[in-house]
Amino acid sequence: MQTQNLSSENSNTKTVFIKMAISAWDGYNARVSKLLETLPDEELLAETAPGRNTGIYLFGHLVAVSDALFPILGFGERLYPGLDKIFVDSPDKSGHEMPPVKELKEYWSKVNAKLSNHISQMREDDWFTRHNNVSEADFKKEPHRNKLNIILNRTSHTSYHLGQLVYLTKK
Amino acid sequence: MQTQNLSSENSNTKTVFIKMAISAWDGYNARVSKLLETLPDEELLAETAPGRNTGIYLFGHLVAVSDALFPILGFGERLYPGLDKIFVDSPDKSGHEMPPVKELKEYWSKVNAKLSNHISQMREDDWFTRHNNVSEADFKKEPHRNKLNIILNRTSHTSYHLGQLVYLTKK
Repeated sequence: MQTQNLSSENSNTKTVFIKMAISAWDGYNARVSKLLETLPDEELLAETAPGRNTGIYLFGHLVAVSDALFPILGFGERLYPGLDKIFVDSPDKSGHEMPPVKELKEYWSKVNAKLSNHISQMREDDWFTRHNNVSEADFKKEPHRNKLNIILNRTSHTSYHLGQLVYLTKK
Repeated sequence: MQTQNLSSENSNTKTVFIKMAISAWDGYNARVSKLLETLPDEELLAETAPGRNTGIYLFGHLVAVSDALFPILGFGERLYPGLDKIFVDSPDKSGHEMPPVKELKEYWSKVNAKLSNHISQMREDDWFTRHNNVSEADFKKEPHRNKLNIILNRTSHTSYHLGQLVYLTKK
C-alpha cells in the first residue's frame, strides 16, 4: 500500500512538472503566433529597433531553433535544416536570402504542430532522460540536463525574442 | 526495498526539477546583473527603442516583480512595496518620481540576495505547495500552480524584458 502511494505520488509529481513546463512552452509559442497574426507581413521586415535585428530574422531564428528540437529530443529529423545557415549561424543582414514571411509562417505552423504531436505522445519518464546535445558522461554528473530542461530553456529563449518582436507593433 | 527505491526516485525527480528551475532563474538574473554592470547608469535612462519603455523603468519593473515574490512564496514581507505604484501599476513616463539608478541597483542586489537565501532554505516538498496568488479550491483543480511554477513564470518574464534591455547596449 505504501509502495503504491509512493509510486503514485512520484507519477503525480512528474505529471505536474511536465504540465508546468509544457504549459509555459505552449503559452509563449501561442503569444508569438498571436503577434504574427496581428502584424502585416511587410511590417515583419522592419528592424525591431534602429540598427537591431529585423522581425523576419528573429522570427526565422525562432523557427530554426524550434525545428532543431526534433533531433535534440529524439523526435526524428528536422523539417527545415537549411534555416540554420541563415538564421542561426549567420547574423541578420548577412546577405543570405531569407524565405518569404508567408513561407516562414507555414514553417512555424508545421514545426509547432509536429512538435506538439510528439510532445503529446511522450512517455513521462522519457522527459527526464538525456537529450542528444549532452554526452552520457556529462548527463550522469548533471541529470538536470534532460529533455524537459531543453523545453524550459527554449521557453525563456522564445520569451527573450518575443520581448523584442513586440517592438514591431504600433505604439 | 521497493518502497525505498520509489521514495528515493521520487525525491531525485524533485531534486532534479527544482535544480532545473532554480538554475534558469539564477541564470537570467545573473544576465540582468551583468548587463547592469556594463551599462553606465545614465544610459539606463534612455528608451530601449524609440517611444518604448526606458531602461530604468524596465529595470525597476523587474526589481518590483522580484520583490513581490516574498509574500507570494510565503517568504515574508516585501522589502520595497512602494515600487509597485511606479513600476507595475503605472506605465513608464507616468510622472511618478523614480528612485535613482544607483538606489535601484541596491534594491536589486538586496532583493536577490534575500530571495536566494530563502530559496536555499526551502524544503523540496514546499515548492510543490500552493502559492499565495491562487486559492485553495483552484489549486486542488490545478496543482501545477505551485510555488516552483511561479519561478518558471518569472524566469520567462525576466528573459522577456532582458531581450529589451540589451537594446541599450552599444551596437
